[in-house]
Amino acid sequence: MSDRTRRIPEATVARLPVYLRSLAELVGDKTATVSSERLAEMAGVNAAKVRKDLSYLGSYGTRGVGYDVEYLAFQMSRELGLTHDWPVVIIGAGNLGQALANYGGFRDRGFPVAALIDANREKVGGHVHGVPVHHIDDLPRLAKDLGIAIAVIATPAGAAQSVADVLAEAGIRSILNFAPTVISVPEGTSLRKVDLALELQILSFYQAHRTPEGP
Amino acid sequence: MSDRTRRIPEATVARLPVYLRSLAELVGDKTATVSSERLAEMAGVNAAKVRKDLSYLGSYGTRGVGYDVEYLAFQMSRELGLTHDWPVVIIGAGNLGQALANYGGFRDRGFPVAALIDANREKVGGHVHGVPVHHIDDLPRLAKDLGIAIAVIATPAGAAQSVADVLAEAGIRSILNFAPTVISVPEGTSLRKVDLALELQILSFYQAHRTPEGP
Repeated sequence: MSDRTRRIPEATVARLPVYLRSLAELVGDKTATVSSERLAEMAGVNAAKVRKDLSYLGSYGTRGVGYDVEYLAFQMSRELGLTHDWPVVIIGAGNLGQALANYGGFRDRGFPVAALIDANREKVGGHVHGVPVHHIDDLPRLAKDLGIAIAVIATPAGAAQSVADVLAEAGIRSILNFAPTVISVPEGTSLRKVDLALELQILSFYQAHRTPEGP
Repeated sequence: MSDRTRRIPEATVARLPVYLRSLAELVGDKTATVSSERLAEMAGVNAAKVRKDLSYLGSYGTRGVGYDVEYLAFQMSRELGLTHDWPVVIIGAGNLGQALANYGGFRDRGFPVAALIDANREKVGGHVHGVPVHHIDDLPRLAKDLGIAIAVIATPAGAAQSVADVLAEAGIRSILNFAPTVISVPEGTSLRKVDLALELQILSFYQAHRTPEGP
């Protein structure tokens, strides 16, 4: 919450979770220290960028030794606000919303799904994978009661903007959008978009450039 | 398929779909030309990197004018192998697999879902959102018959490695893994991993660094 941390460049912020994932692997392997070169290789960036990124956290490593893995993972978790859980709501209780409600990677990483929200009253009242389904009209109250700061939009494209408007009214200012459409949000709201097709396009590149016989 | 294209750095390849998405927006807005600065801003990188990345495609733009939007989009689509469709199979007909089968972003971007695959015979034989569900034992034959080059793993974590092994046997060498676990694939196979929690961690950073009163 210091001024220093708020000046971390956006591109650096986006790489912190990637470093954290690599550090978690190293912790799992009981690796005590890591060089910027090794971390760079694991994260798919260059070593100079790793050193620069980590310097924003006040981490400089020790020459000839590298970074202390556990301490760096702790620093990064703290910086990312991951030292406590962030309950999330998922808007849209269709297949995607239900899949996300059941996605182990959310809960394991400190994002328990507190509620599924749908506009269809027939879906409301039950539970999906243990998560209660509420009506979108209840969102403002729920957000307050459950301490929701982050919402995930998992509706069809056509419903995404109206959902974003409801989220704005409910005071939710961090939104992850899975709907394959562009939405606009009020100034001061953080919006991230998951594009599930992007990774397929990267695979398509390698597939297109593959020779029939070799890799 | 030239030597030139095969030397494009991995990090550049990963940015090409991001540029392409920005270019698609510009095409939609009927914008004829774009500067590297504007494209950089849209893609969230710096302008020097855009110019360097595009130079790998043989695109240098025109001083004072920028890049021709439609031609650049065409070049990029061609480089990414997107000038024809790549039918994909989705392994795992649970909520996530069904959601992906119905995800408009795949079909729209040239990745029609040709089949859903499951190990549970009770799920086999029907259709989900118009996509036929087949048993995993039929995968090698299906891959051949349908010309499948890319597979999407949408199983629970525990099943992902055995699925990857079946894909290897079926000769599928491009894999997108949604299961929240690390899998190993044979040398020469392209593997990309979608980490749905990563974007939440980025939002968590901004949420944690938000002042109660301001943005």
